[in-house]
Parts: sequence; C-alpha cells; structure tokens
Amino acid sequence: MTPKLEFWFEFASTYSYIAAEEIEDKASAAGVEVVWRPFLLGPIFATQGWPDSPFNLYPAKGAYMWRDVERLCQRKGIAWRRPSVFPRNGLLASRIATALDASEKLHAFIRSVYRANFSFDLDISEPSVLKEILRSISLDEEAIFERANDDSVKQLLRARTDEAKSRGVFGAPSFFAKEELFWGSDRLEQAIDSLRT
Amino acid sequence: MTPKLEFWFEFASTYSYIAAEEIEDKASAAGVEVVWRPFLLGPIFATQGWPDSPFNLYPAKGAYMWRDVERLCQRKGIAWRRPSVFPRNGLLASRIATALDASEKLHAFIRSVYRANFSFDLDISEPSVLKEILRSISLDEEAIFERANDDSVKQLLRARTDEAKSRGVFGAPSFFAKEELFWGSDRLEQAIDSLRT
Repeated sequence: MTPKLEFWFEFASTYSYIAAEEIEDKASAAGVEVVWRPFLLGPIFATQGWPDSPFNLYPAKGAYMWRDVERLCQRKGIAWRRPSVFPRNGLLASRIATALDASEKLHAFIRSVYRANFSFDLDISEPSVLKEILRSISLDEEAIFERANDDSVKQLLRARTDEAKSRGVFGAPSFFAKEELFWGSDRLEQAIDSLRT
Repeated sequence: MTPKLEFWFEFASTYSYIAAEEIEDKASAAGVEVVWRPFLLGPIFATQGWPDSPFNLYPAKGAYMWRDVERLCQRKGIAWRRPSVFPRNGLLASRIATALDASEKLHAFIRSVYRANFSFDLDISEPSVLKEILRSISLDEEAIFERANDDSVKQLLRARTDEAKSRGVFGAPSFFAKEELFWGSDRLEQAIDSLRT
C-alpha cells in the first residue's frame, strides 16, 4: 500500500504556499501519496483568541515572517511577490478545492491559486480570478462554481476545519503522517521520512 | 576575519536547548565563531501581551511543541527528558552566563545548564543547582555568584534583552548573521550558510 501524507493547507498562508510548491516532487520521490486537505485558519485562530493572522497581531513576528519567506523562496527557487493584502480571504478558493476533491486537476488548481496570491498579487477572493484559473486548467468554471456553492461542499469544508481542530491542528501548513502531526513547511521532509520507516 | 554568528538564547526555551546542543559543531565546521547572547524571553513576551510562555497559553501549540521537541531530539541524538516545570526561571543562570562573558568556560556552563533543565529535570532557578554546575567545570562558585549578582551584570543582561527587542527578536533561539535575523533552531544551518557567501 502506498503510504499517505495528509497536507492541510490554507490559501492565505505564506508557509503553506512554500509547502504546496514543494510537496508533490518530494512526496513522489519518496513514493508517498499526497492527500490534499484545504481548510480555514480563521476558525482555528479564533479559538486561540486571534481575530486576525498572528503575523498582523504581533508586528515583530510579522516583520520576520515576510523576510523569512522571501529568503526561503529565494533559496528554494520559488517565485515570490509579497501580496499587497494579507491575509487574503481563501474561503471561496477552499470551497472550490473541496468541490474538486476527487478531480485529477485538484493540485493544478491549488498551485495556480497559490501563485496568483503569492507570485502575481492577485485577489484570490475574487470570483473572476478563480474562474480564470479554472478556465486556464480546462475546467468548466460555471459548473464548478455551482458545485462549490452547494451546501454539501460548504458543510464538508466546515467539517474538515473542525476535524483539523480536533486533531490538534493550530496553524498551517500541517501534515499528518500515520496520525503524527507535523507543523510548518520546514517539517515536510521529516513528515515524509517518518513514512519510510 | 572569522565570520560571527550571534546566538540569542533563553535557558527556559526548549528549542534554544536544541540549538545550544548543535551550534558549536556546526559553526566550527563552517569556520564560524559563535557569539553567545543569553537574554530573557519574559520581557519580550510581555510586550506581545503574553504573561506566560505561548506554549502554556495556547494548549494545542504547547502539546505539539512537546511532541516535536521529543521527535527532534530523538532524530538528532540529543538527550531529552521533559521537564516537570515549564518554563523554568532562567534569570539567575542568565546572570551567571552574562558574568562569564569573557570566560572560555562560558559554553561549558551553558550546555550544563541546558542539560540540567532538559535532560535531568533539575531546577535551574535553584542556586544550589547552579553552584554544583560551576564546581563541576572547576569554577569558583562563590566568586561567580558574587559577580552575577552585581548591579553591572544585572544591567548588562537587561540592556541585552532590550537590544534583542529593538533588533526585532520576538522568540528564542534567534540568530544574527551580518545583521540578518533568523529565528528557531531549524534556521541554524541557514544562518551559518548565509555567512559563507
């Protein structure tokens, strides 16, 4: 059986972007299958008493994060442009990713949304931006929007966010490997390694 | 000129322990000199509105940290025992480390304090524990205690903590390499690498 790595990510999250850029190559090199789990950080942060991203609430932490992400992207060869709005609302994009669950185009969509946000500074909460992305990967944007706005998808995304919380997730990206939680883009290799043994 | 890496650490900090265990070998292999900078996280956390360690204030983050540190120590071959009290008060140990500034035994003292806290579960706020450590590295514990409690040392430690804050430090361990801030034990290699180029 192919070992599985659950990848829990939020479209607004800078470090999730780095992980999303790296995870497919690293997982496939190790013979590991990625299980994509879009979720929402807002409700998770709210239970920690944070009405906003901790990078906005704690300015020193925020200033460091912007420099750290810029340096990491440079080092790893990942395209980077600091978005003019942070965090961008990833709700609609997450619903679309949830609706695309079984599609083989799911990860193309995810990568395009991340690049729109963190490399082209586009507003990923805008339906027009997301429709453009769907079209660019040859998907029927109207049909998918209809599905993404269906109650079943909204409920599934809410249930996934609740699941994340109940399994101890407190930030993004998070990975589960054999029920072990790993947090942060810099734990990706370790999470994959833990599946080899 | 030998490139210098500033290592800002707090004796109560779990990830500072990991960095303290690794920094000498990694720095010396790269021809880098370590500048040891003990400081206090309490006043830094206070400016972020935290009256306690964030690992105590945010239980999900705390639960993850304990598992993460245990896993990292196992992976790296670092002795580990979860302390029965967290965070332990590192004020007196930091004053002693500040008093030992110019001494060649400074890093032996630092390592012993970290191991006392995180591998032997000893109370590093206890003068008797610290005196025992000083004796074990052949230092005159009474003379050093006298120096550590001198106003000039107290002021120097306070000034260093203020310096950390003003240079953007918000947690520990932190590293400065050519005035670039790196945060977290998992940024040690990157900080050292940045001094090679």
